[in-house]
Amino acid sequence: MSNTTGHNFRLTTFGESHGTAIGGVIDGCPAGLVVDEPFIVAEMARRHVGADATARREADRVEFLSGICEGRTLGTPIAFTIANGDVRSSDYDAFADSFRPGHADYTYYKRYGLRDPRGGGRASGRETAARVAAGAIAKMILREKGISINARLLESYIPPANDSVGGIIECIVSGLAAGIGNPVFGKLNASLAAAMMSISSAIGFEMGAGFAAAKMTGSQFRDKWNPDFSTQTNHCGGMQGGISNGMPIVFRTAFHPATTVGQPTECIDRNGTLHTVTPQGRHDRNHLPRTVVVVEAMAALTIVDFII
Amino acid sequence: MSNTTGHNFRLTTFGESHGTAIGGVIDGCPAGLVVDEPFIVAEMARRHVGADATARREADRVEFLSGICEGRTLGTPIAFTIANGDVRSSDYDAFADSFRPGHADYTYYKRYGLRDPRGGGRASGRETAARVAAGAIAKMILREKGISINARLLESYIPPANDSVGGIIECIVSGLAAGIGNPVFGKLNASLAAAMMSISSAIGFEMGAGFAAAKMTGSQFRDKWNPDFSTQTNHCGGMQGGISNGMPIVFRTAFHPATTVGQPTECIDRNGTLHTVTPQGRHDRNHLPRTVVVVEAMAALTIVDFII
Amino acid sequence: MSNTTGHNFRLTTFGESHGTAIGGVIDGCPAGLVVDEPFIVAEMARRHVGADATARREADRVEFLSGICEGRTLGTPIAFTIANGDVRSSDYDAFADSFRPGHADYTYYKRYGLRDPRGGGRASGRETAARVAAGAIAKMILREKGISINARLLESYIPPANDSVGGIIECIVSGLAAGIGNPVFGKLNASLAAAMMSISSAIGFEMGAGFAAAKMTGSQFRDKWNPDFSTQTNHCGGMQGGISNGMPIVFRTAFHPATTVGQPTECIDRNGTLHTVTPQGRHDRNHLPRTVVVVEAMAALTIVDFII
Amino acid sequence: MSNTTGHNFRLTTFGESHGTAIGGVIDGCPAGLVVDEPFIVAEMARRHVGADATARREADRVEFLSGICEGRTLGTPIAFTIANGDVRSSDYDAFADSFRPGHADYTYYKRYGLRDPRGGGRASGRETAARVAAGAIAKMILREKGISINARLLESYIPPANDSVGGIIECIVSGLAAGIGNPVFGKLNASLAAAMMSISSAIGFEMGAGFAAAKMTGSQFRDKWNPDFSTQTNHCGGMQGGISNGMPIVFRTAFHPATTVGQPTECIDRNGTLHTVTPQGRHDRNHLPRTVVVVEAMAALTIVDFII
Repeated sequence: MSNTTGHNFRLTTFGESHGTAIGGVIDGCPAGLVVDEPFIVAEMARRHVGADATARREADRVEFLSGICEGRTLGTPIAFTIANGDVRSSDYDAFADSFRPGHADYTYYKRYGLRDPRGGGRASGRETAARVAAGAIAKMILREKGISINARLLESYIPPANDSVGGIIECIVSGLAAGIGNPVFGKLNASLAAAMMSISSAIGFEMGAGFAAAKMTGSQFRDKWNPDFSTQTNHCGGMQGGISNGMPIVFRTAFHPATTVGQPTECIDRNGTLHTVTPQGRHDRNHLPRTVVVVEAMAALTIVDFII
Repeated sequence: MSNTTGHNFRLTTFGESHGTAIGGVIDGCPAGLVVDEPFIVAEMARRHVGADATARREADRVEFLSGICEGRTLGTPIAFTIANGDVRSSDYDAFADSFRPGHADYTYYKRYGLRDPRGGGRASGRETAARVAAGAIAKMILREKGISINARLLESYIPPANDSVGGIIECIVSGLAAGIGNPVFGKLNASLAAAMMSISSAIGFEMGAGFAAAKMTGSQFRDKWNPDFSTQTNHCGGMQGGISNGMPIVFRTAFHPATTVGQPTECIDRNGTLHTVTPQGRHDRNHLPRTVVVVEAMAALTIVDFII
Repeated sequence: MSNTTGHNFRLTTFGESHGTAIGGVIDGCPAGLVVDEPFIVAEMARRHVGADATARREADRVEFLSGICEGRTLGTPIAFTIANGDVRSSDYDAFADSFRPGHADYTYYKRYGLRDPRGGGRASGRETAARVAAGAIAKMILREKGISINARLLESYIPPANDSVGGIIECIVSGLAAGIGNPVFGKLNASLAAAMMSISSAIGFEMGAGFAAAKMTGSQFRDKWNPDFSTQTNHCGGMQGGISNGMPIVFRTAFHPATTVGQPTECIDRNGTLHTVTPQGRHDRNHLPRTVVVVEAMAALTIVDFII
Repeated sequence: MSNTTGHNFRLTTFGESHGTAIGGVIDGCPAGLVVDEPFIVAEMARRHVGADATARREADRVEFLSGICEGRTLGTPIAFTIANGDVRSSDYDAFADSFRPGHADYTYYKRYGLRDPRGGGRASGRETAARVAAGAIAKMILREKGISINARLLESYIPPANDSVGGIIECIVSGLAAGIGNPVFGKLNASLAAAMMSISSAIGFEMGAGFAAAKMTGSQFRDKWNPDFSTQTNHCGGMQGGISNGMPIVFRTAFHPATTVGQPTECIDRNGTLHTVTPQGRHDRNHLPRTVVVVEAMAALTIVDFII
């Protein structure tokens, strides 16, 4: 189902951005894991970093309802909620009957026949808070196995006044042994691609040399062996045939800019009438800095699903 | 599981490149579909196009074992086989104890502990024949619904002597209504990305403006409405929030060059000893032309899974 | 995963009986359904019926966190919690190091290596509250389609002093059209059997004539046609080949008695030492009356999964 | 999907009884398993045992197409076919427009809108041949882990002239360690129930004391501990809370008699006209003896799915 990701370590998320709460349920977390609460707090805070980050400042405190007893996981489902404390639905009233350009307003309307107009409903970037919370649990498991996940801004821009920018985030998974992944449709790179493209505003994905590999010859592209089974280059991004080769997993995700900007915006209503609206809400001129931890969270959820 | 793709229209493939046969089982095909056999033959033939295509010329005849009666589907599983008629295992003897650079030899060995060295086993590009056969069935369903899928070489190169080249294939899905796809983890773009990255040698994926969108501002990127709910540009590639918006779905997949080339190749054995092997088999200097139909097949399998 | 049931209408439950809350997430509920809150309250109350029902009297108020806006479903996940208001963990202290006979204490310990001893943890009958809440939503969908589900006590006993009793519950699904179900492994009866056997203390399941059919001949067993495609008897219980035939679906589930009784009980500790404990908690001498609504809920979740 | 069973060890079956072939694909079998071909032949032969077994005598030779190399599994999908050598479709011509009583003719017609009338199509008992072949592979895995599965006729009858009989088969799984299974919806007993009820003509299922447990008190039912964690009785059938307790897993499945008998049979056509047909085909007066190996196969597929 569309709100669940993973097979062995499975996350189901729920919640509209302007409802009571968002949250998730993790199924498949091993029993006995020590839950590092300060780490969760720190990860959640990373969703608010950046000089130009969104003005919205939820506390984003993760409350666990189940699956944890005396600081350790029980092996049962870990349910958690994150309250939507700072809801200003009135900011969105102007859009109640409008489909904004570049937003999922229209597509949700066509998909479901009705929608919760307040704050983008389920399509809001707020939904990623649940991913980051679950990703923090996944990282704790990976940490015990010596696997680390680090993403960074590779291409970033300064937003001009009243406009937004996109960018590229690179992510590196280190410490993953060779032999992780599955052939054919269960390739590790396919799962990573799906995980990244499931993040709002993701619009491109590449492994290793990526699109530049299209211009290389086979003798240039193929990574030469070292006697310890590492390779002299990492054009393939750490896997062959969808299975890790022991080199770092390297991939990049391109994100388009946020499509709500502080400018008059031509919207369309259900009857096809175009009209101009000037948005009053808070808008994210550069969502890239706060997306870094989301990329890491999705990578962690993907990797942990393969190794559990 | 790694050899199955799809939820509602599900394909399971099987077969090693140098075993008795490869094939697949389709589960979820509606009953009553007229099976257009000449179309299947034509699609299979497209896997052999190209001036520089592989020398291997299997008949690649698709034999149906079940699920079809008197030219119509029964709604039961459609099993099919494609015989491996032209097996020259001896071509691969030189590599029986060698891990080639850029191949899945080493990763399969680490994943399974043993491997079928003949012809790359399950990781062979030959596995895509089953995808094309199933994709042809999927296209028949889409055709009845007015949906067409067309891929083409966007970037292609002439291979230098004794070397291979990569390239970029663009694919356009036309006729898909707005409202197809699911939010969060079930996004249509995420499924397309996974489908494309599951093709051997795929190394990058992008929708619409793709990586170039990282350099755009929000006011440039967002597609302006026409009064009929179409948009003046298609930077987003035909969907928002993972759900189709009625515009053509546009995406591109980058492929790296084949990593076996007609040159002496430094391989490594299980003990970490490097040694040079000169390959004797047939090699694909430009696999792009024959990959076009594979891209279409995977797109068809993905789209049909969302609309059934 | 073990805490999720269903494919198209999917319920994930969470929560230990003595943690903060239990609850669930429903994914796949259609958008636009009017949520009948009084019906939910009434269904939850049915888990407390019976002259000899458990003394525990939680309010069992279902709080919805997402997926519902202004009384209608959004098509997004419906998350709900049920607070564990009345937790008397001290009642269970005596069993903290003991495995009770007939309970899941020992099996959970072997499965997870540790356990939450308070109140049976995840194995508690309390988990069924989440099933009933979700089942109420499922019944609302079925009601709109003219399908009703009614279970009743078929065999019930009066518990002797300080002991517990089991019984048999019969359930009838009326109004289901012919043609619902799937062949081979996706049979409707197989799903109903799994649904029923997933209820704590279920120990037997039968359709139609059930075990008595083993003693019949084929000419006795087979249900004779009426000209309107109904049948004169319903020995098969409303389906053939796992697909409904338009007759009422009839099945029975046998439940064993609760295994904690108000008597000295010989337990075993981790070292294999037997010792006698006299339970102090509240115990269910006859859980059958309150299980009726659980049977209906699981039937509703199963049926709705087939027709959505 | 309805033609696939299992999660970690997954079997997809295909084939109509009177098409070219039936067969299956196993995904998830570990690499390196030695394939005991004589054992497979012996298991297939068990589907033909019994003094009164069906007259149809297919060779039922299992041909493997993939996943096995030099007698060992590769870890890749194991596809196999079983030819339908002995097809006498003309036997079924009389029923081409008739829905027989007690058969899946009518339900398949309502489900799919058309059907392959020859021999029951997909609903035929012949489909179980694929289960037995896959079950033999599953048993090889279990054998290496010291787990054995043995079913036997518990209640069996001598069919009167021109009529058929049902019966009860008991199955015991020995050697399974404590701690196998999952809570809530993933209970081992729920999976076993679904596996058994997926066999044609299964109509009842019970664990341990089964329906008789409904009449017991809790103090009678609960199995008393021995100091080695075994129990003095096995009323629960070897599990609590859906997780094995180390005792033998004991369950029984009731089967109704075959519904085609050698007597004039009142059928119904698509227009609701009743008419009498005298069947000419071969009919199974007592299918129980040949169902024993099917019960074992489904048990083996279920158990192996939990322990891989």
